[in-house]
Amino acid sequence: MSVLPEDPRVGELSEAIILRGILERLGGSRALVGPGDDAAVLAMAGRVVATTDTLVEGPDFRLAWSSGYDLGWKSAAVNLADVAAMGARPTALLVALALPAETRLSFVLDLADGLRDACDRLAPGCEVVGGDLTVSPTLTIAVTALGELEEREAVRRDGARAGDVLALAGEAGQAARGLSVLFDRFRDADGRPVPVDRSGLVPDDARALDAQLRPLPPVALGPVAADAGATAMMDVSDGLARDAARMAAASGVSFDIDGAALGPHRAWAVSGGEDHGLLATFPDGRELPEGFRAIGRAVPARGDGPAVNVDGAAADGGWDPYRDWDGRSG
Amino acid sequence: MSVLPEDPRVGELSEAIILRGILERLGGSRALVGPGDDAAVLAMAGRVVATTDTLVEGPDFRLAWSSGYDLGWKSAAVNLADVAAMGARPTALLVALALPAETRLSFVLDLADGLRDACDRLAPGCEVVGGDLTVSPTLTIAVTALGELEEREAVRRDGARAGDVLALAGEAGQAARGLSVLFDRFRDADGRPVPVDRSGLVPDDARALDAQLRPLPPVALGPVAADAGATAMMDVSDGLARDAARMAAASGVSFDIDGAALGPHRAWAVSGGEDHGLLATFPDGRELPEGFRAIGRAVPARGDGPAVNVDGAAADGGWDPYRDWDGRSG
Repeated sequence: MSVLPEDPRVGELSEAIILRGILERLGGSRALVGPGDDAAVLAMAGRVVATTDTLVEGPDFRLAWSSGYDLGWKSAAVNLADVAAMGARPTALLVALALPAETRLSFVLDLADGLRDACDRLAPGCEVVGGDLTVSPTLTIAVTALGELEEREAVRRDGARAGDVLALAGEAGQAARGLSVLFDRFRDADGRPVPVDRSGLVPDDARALDAQLRPLPPVALGPVAADAGATAMMDVSDGLARDAARMAAASGVSFDIDGAALGPHRAWAVSGGEDHGLLATFPDGRELPEGFRAIGRAVPARGDGPAVNVDGAAADGGWDPYRDWDGRSG
Repeated sequence: MSVLPEDPRVGELSEAIILRGILERLGGSRALVGPGDDAAVLAMAGRVVATTDTLVEGPDFRLAWSSGYDLGWKSAAVNLADVAAMGARPTALLVALALPAETRLSFVLDLADGLRDACDRLAPGCEVVGGDLTVSPTLTIAVTALGELEEREAVRRDGARAGDVLALAGEAGQAARGLSVLFDRFRDADGRPVPVDRSGLVPDDARALDAQLRPLPPVALGPVAADAGATAMMDVSDGLARDAARMAAASGVSFDIDGAALGPHRAWAVSGGEDHGLLATFPDGRELPEGFRAIGRAVPARGDGPAVNVDGAAADGGWDPYRDWDGRSG
């Protein structure tokens, strides 16, 4: 029997040993059948909400900037937000990890910690019920989240009506600003990412970094918004300009946004994503649920005019993974 | 407005245009909320079965050997088999595609065709209800499959009892033999994969190739086995030696397999995987459902002895993604 080094690389280990380590970090499962069989079995009543979102090294993160824990947290958070955006409560994650053979076991175990802690913090009761491990040249984390609508109707993107109030819950622009802090402050002369040293950061930059690396989408407010009569809802992953335009197109309206309502990071909020806040519309005159603030209003579709105006001028920008990736990794 | 080349690369396109092409190929969805919102909404009664499995360029496939259609088919099939192995009927897939920017649009559309056709053939009524598109240096297809148990109990790996008959449905060894045909016949002098020319293949080798590239797991037999009283079940993805040993460990038994019952490709069936046949145990004396054949018997656990014997000798071999990958791609 070989003696393993203190922090082995996954390429030195069997799948079974890696899995055992991950499952220890995740803790026990309350599923009817949890990890370890061909599939998980879950008690889910009625309508099930399901979504998948992937983080890929390079376009979505750099290993110099994100720890395993950060990546576990973020890959859970972005999927939990998508479930919440339908008005549902997340109950289960499946996690497909594709790992380079040279990945340290400690990194994988930290990632499992991040997954678990994000579930505990953002969606108590939600847990990892299954997954898959493969080897890959590119570190890739594909998460599927499942949730329950209970008695609520799903809140879609296409229900906004002219006159509705446009409201936002969660951060607006912090995560995008955090990305700019990383690009501006933590690259070497050749543009390669270098490890983050927080000691020189002012508190607001440190908060922006946290928002980028470990976002806090307002997951619990998804069902709250549904109960409060939201007519449309989505999570903001690509910036308000792009995402509000998607809601506008689906609903057949346009939006007028009040820039002052977007807070101190207005430009980032419009053009940058990844806060995974919840954007929702509510009927005019309806009291907004706590946690949501009005940022504008739905108006009749402007046809060839702008789908989204901010203070009367067309909003543009927003992130497109196929157009905007700079091709670097590290 | 720019004019697109006839078969553009995905890096030249917006996410929205790629998605529209994929959704056209997939056809309409019967889900309560299908693709296009933050998450899908599905009507699922009672207990839900969920599993995820990923195909990665390099360890899992080579683009010289697999078409987009093959990969769509296989990524669906391996997940459908996992749902079936619990005794459930697959109802929905979520597909996370991570694509190199130079991938041709036609390849992605073929992949969508393969996903749809595998669902139609192997699990009628099952469909793609959602997904995710990201750019990546490494082509990666992460599929999550959901299924319904209806009134059945889930069939786990841990229910085999000494005296039970061990039975198999589906191919045994063909897919592994097909992989060896690829490695032996379709590589150049430097070991790099070259495109498959079927004109020189004898029919049995062509069939093996089909089993490797477009496997036909007996998905419909999963619920049938559950109804027939299967005590344990799993899909065979890593060869009988490894997978039967997993069932043996989970159930606290050992297995004696009759080599002659494994058919003409016995050695491949023991050590090679990817047929995604269903391995199940049934109480002694119970009539096996059509499509299953007896291949052995569960016996009391042999302790330190072999978990799986074939004709009285310990079976070994089987595929481990972290130990057995040769690191090549292409």
